[in-house]
Amino acid sequence: MIELDRRSLLTGAAAVAGTAALAPFSATPARSAAPPIGTQNAGWYRYKVGTHEITVATDGVTRFRFPDGFVANKTREEVNEGLAAAAFMQAAPDEYVTPYTPIVVNTGAKLVVMDTGTGEANFERSKGMTGQFQNNLKAAGIDRNQVDMVIISHFHGDHINGLLTADDKPAFPNAEILVPEAEWLYFMDDAEMAKQTSERMKTVFAGLRRVFDALGRKVTRYQPDKELAPGIISLATYGHTPGHNSFVIAAGTDKVFVQADVTHTPLFVRNPGWHAMYDQDPNMAEATRRKIYDMLASERMMVQGFHYPFPSRAYIEKTPTGYRETMVAWSPAI
Amino acid sequence: MIELDRRSLLTGAAAVAGTAALAPFSATPARSAAPPIGTQNAGWYRYKVGTHEITVATDGVTRFRFPDGFVANKTREEVNEGLAAAAFMQAAPDEYVTPYTPIVVNTGAKLVVMDTGTGEANFERSKGMTGQFQNNLKAAGIDRNQVDMVIISHFHGDHINGLLTADDKPAFPNAEILVPEAEWLYFMDDAEMAKQTSERMKTVFAGLRRVFDALGRKVTRYQPDKELAPGIISLATYGHTPGHNSFVIAAGTDKVFVQADVTHTPLFVRNPGWHAMYDQDPNMAEATRRKIYDMLASERMMVQGFHYPFPSRAYIEKTPTGYRETMVAWSPAI
Repeated sequence: MIELDRRSLLTGAAAVAGTAALAPFSATPARSAAPPIGTQNAGWYRYKVGTHEITVATDGVTRFRFPDGFVANKTREEVNEGLAAAAFMQAAPDEYVTPYTPIVVNTGAKLVVMDTGTGEANFERSKGMTGQFQNNLKAAGIDRNQVDMVIISHFHGDHINGLLTADDKPAFPNAEILVPEAEWLYFMDDAEMAKQTSERMKTVFAGLRRVFDALGRKVTRYQPDKELAPGIISLATYGHTPGHNSFVIAAGTDKVFVQADVTHTPLFVRNPGWHAMYDQDPNMAEATRRKIYDMLASERMMVQGFHYPFPSRAYIEKTPTGYRETMVAWSPAI
Repeated sequence: MIELDRRSLLTGAAAVAGTAALAPFSATPARSAAPPIGTQNAGWYRYKVGTHEITVATDGVTRFRFPDGFVANKTREEVNEGLAAAAFMQAAPDEYVTPYTPIVVNTGAKLVVMDTGTGEANFERSKGMTGQFQNNLKAAGIDRNQVDMVIISHFHGDHINGLLTADDKPAFPNAEILVPEAEWLYFMDDAEMAKQTSERMKTVFAGLRRVFDALGRKVTRYQPDKELAPGIISLATYGHTPGHNSFVIAAGTDKVFVQADVTHTPLFVRNPGWHAMYDQDPNMAEATRRKIYDMLASERMMVQGFHYPFPSRAYIEKTPTGYRETMVAWSPAI
């Protein structure tokens, strides 16, 4: 009864598809369909952690040709293979795709933004591919003026540039800005800046000074293992940067691990030993990654991943060669 | 430098979380945050297959206590284990979660709906959990009156009930309704209906007659391996029902496999040998499933899965015990 096999699919239906231009439907359409619409849905998603209301709002996605040394301990060929074969993440060879996904937490007492994306100035520059965070917040019904607190995980541009508007004003004018003390001490140290030799690190130092100078360096420094807002706890996850922090959001019996950049995209979930160029201390970053992911897997704890595909929530399991994410199903109601 | 290990996470930060109710933040919030918003984003998503524009629009999600015999060749314990441990799909023991995800294809010449969800009447009945398809179409900018064609994969209620409005009128008043000929011949045969002994199958037969009778039985029957609209090709994938069809949408060099119910949720992707109660001929359904999934894996072909979590697009790989889906990343732009 079943006629379909791979051969019939390829020689039958797919052959039909291949000659679609010759088929009567295409050659002489009875009428034109409604015009294509061409717009995407707004990139926000809402869920609850206990009584806390979390709004995920994407800042967009960058696609770029990854440079040599993108993964320090892997060849370009291995990276391509990993992206294409293992992670199904690749549209074209040598292409890397990075989503950016800040979140907003309403704790009942505080409205808290966690990391801020690449910044509104990027929206025009990228032709709308990134710099979307504020647009998506608005679409989600969130007023930037009502934000009480912004918690920064670390000082890379895609996490802090959204602290400023396109004209370098505070993007969250009524918010206290919380930054990791270890990150502040390291990156605001002029002697550390003077030591840098790589262009990338010089850009990182210059970029974060531009942002914090525009804010008059008015920040509150925080320590790991502290409750920064009700049910939002900081955790030292050093390596990616010297003061990188992650967070547990816990309310009632429910919780989620907000990892920031413990891994970058799921490519590095599946390959935890790969040293992305973003990891400032790759060995420490790997050790942190394995500790955290062992914990996420054994605790079956949900993770919110800044560089995971929107809405960026997953569960983790351990595999013989690393870890594997299962994206949490979209719920059409809260 | 890294202080964090599982012990410190559990005894440190998590302990902080556990005592959050006693912490100063929670006990005496400085002020109230903005009120929670409580609404979810509209459930639609858009992508292109060549020049074809595809709009995925969820009909919602049902959660229910699965009955004994839900998977004929597995115990309740095994099903619970599979749902919880393997698929991360389970919120509570004995609970099964089913998303319903019709799509709309604009071929340039035709605006085509593929399967229709549980029906608008279900929206009130389910308190908005299902019956969302028309709401999400509207949110996506699609006018039901402009739909030229509805293609039905098979005759289960969650695929055909959306052919009718809540008051049993045609939901797509200007559309030609295409149904699989094999499905029509089997299910409209009164002798076949009279043979049925199970309550479930009696309900299926009665339900589809209610729908097609309300439409005056005015349908166009189609065969497998035919181009039903430009670039939309039917494929016999029998077993789930006697006339079940899947589809390839192909435009230019791009294509996607629209599987309908070759598998139900990803639980059955990971366990292709499990016989869900929905499969009318379980052995034929399994044989079809393995053929199609072998092809999807070897061709690295994207699949649009009616019962996958919204937006229901995945790539498939073969594993030692079955298959595994990787959900396609959300693109914040088309």
